Amino acid sequence: MYKAFGQEDLQAQVDFLEWVEVRGINGGLYYLSVQTMSIAIVMIDICGYSRLIDRDALGTARRVLQLRHQILEPFARAHRGTVVDSSGDNTMLAFHRADDALGCAFAVQQVHDHSDRAMAARDLLQLHIGISAGQVLLIDGSFYGRPVNIAARLAALTEPNAIYLCEATLDQIDPHIVMQAESLGEQLLRNMEPVQAYRLTGTWASRAVASRMICRD
Amino acid sequence: MYKAFGQEDLQAQVDFLEWVEVRGINGGLYYLSVQTMSIAIVMIDICGYSRLIDRDALGTARRVLQLRHQILEPFARAHRGTVVDSSGDNTMLAFHRADDALGCAFAVQQVHDHSDRAMAARDLLQLHIGISAGQVLLIDGSFYGRPVNIAARLAALTEPNAIYLCEATLDQIDPHIVMQAESLGEQLLRNMEPVQAYRLTGTWASRAVASRMICRD
Repeated sequence: MYKAFGQEDLQAQVDFLEWVEVRGINGGLYYLSVQTMSIAIVMIDICGYSRLIDRDALGTARRVLQLRHQILEPFARAHRGTVVDSSGDNTMLAFHRADDALGCAFAVQQVHDHSDRAMAARDLLQLHIGISAGQVLLIDGSFYGRPVNIAARLAALTEPNAIYLCEATLDQIDPHIVMQAESLGEQLLRNMEPVQAYRLTGTWASRAVASRMICRD
Repeated sequence: MYKAFGQEDLQAQVDFLEWVEVRGINGGLYYLSVQTMSIAIVMIDICGYSRLIDRDALGTARRVLQLRHQILEPFARAHRGTVVDSSGDNTMLAFHRADDALGCAFAVQQVHDHSDRAMAARDLLQLHIGISAGQVLLIDGSFYGRPVNIAARLAALTEPNAIYLCEATLDQIDPHIVMQAESLGEQLLRNMEPVQAYRLTGTWASRAVASRMICRD
């Protein structure tokens, strides 16, 4: 994970907080560094994953692997992010900038939608995507903090092929980005303080691209 | 994961099924071997994890790390199993034998309960544990299959500090084990066929130990 972000980038955005003391198996102590980091998290679930596995475990596993290797990993990298965690149908991506997180999520839903168009309806692999940005703790290669849980809960709320994001993410989007988001009002998330949520709609483009498109008319 | 199970053990219990073709980022193909394996899965969640993180992210992260390093990893190893995956509050353990999976889960709940007895009620780290056994696919270091999803869903159903298991797990328990389990009837699990579930109650001991205990009276 460290490597994917690039060394200089990391220096600028990660702050050392303290050491956590952990008692090992033999009673000896060792120390893990706690770092704080401001990131944007994209959480991706596969709709009806358990049903798909029940029906055809091997076929579903193959499609999950294709999704990861052909779409999620290269798209995350192309948007200056990284795959932090994959387990079962769940993939967690991390980005330094909310812009990149949204751009990546949007591209994933679009391309994925297109590549699946030719398949039978019952085989469609549809995605739930939740995005959240904010301060997290990085300890022993894992992220801890409210933004991680918000992204997971938002992904669980979405309808198939939708992208939900929290207000904190929206506030961090570069004003040069042309995007549309629809307010979903305050959402009650299990075991958490409620959050203002938004659904990403319509197009996603940097203003430079958008104005060029207008010039052509 | 391979290493933790031991090489000879693995040879006996893993069957090669086929290769999965995955197209890489540059369009090149590579191949992942698909293996089938009969395992017992123990899925462990922390009760109210999001609420705990909301309240105190660093304190909660520290307690999660302690739980993993001091209890889950050594206990899994002591019961001839291994930690397959850890993300957020979720830890997945895998065992070759259902006996070992149950023995480990029981030990984790007991010890964990004891070590937390001295702490304030609001700081109690309580666990949800779901167990399922059966045939899974092992591809690229990850498990796919119905037993994985059943264990996760059962963990989500449990009350704090409880252990739920499915019927397939119960059927695999060595008759020399002294244990009590209470039927919960048919449970409807989201996106899945219903399963017969059981709650582990009372003690857990091999009959050899139990009869020795009786002899002392």
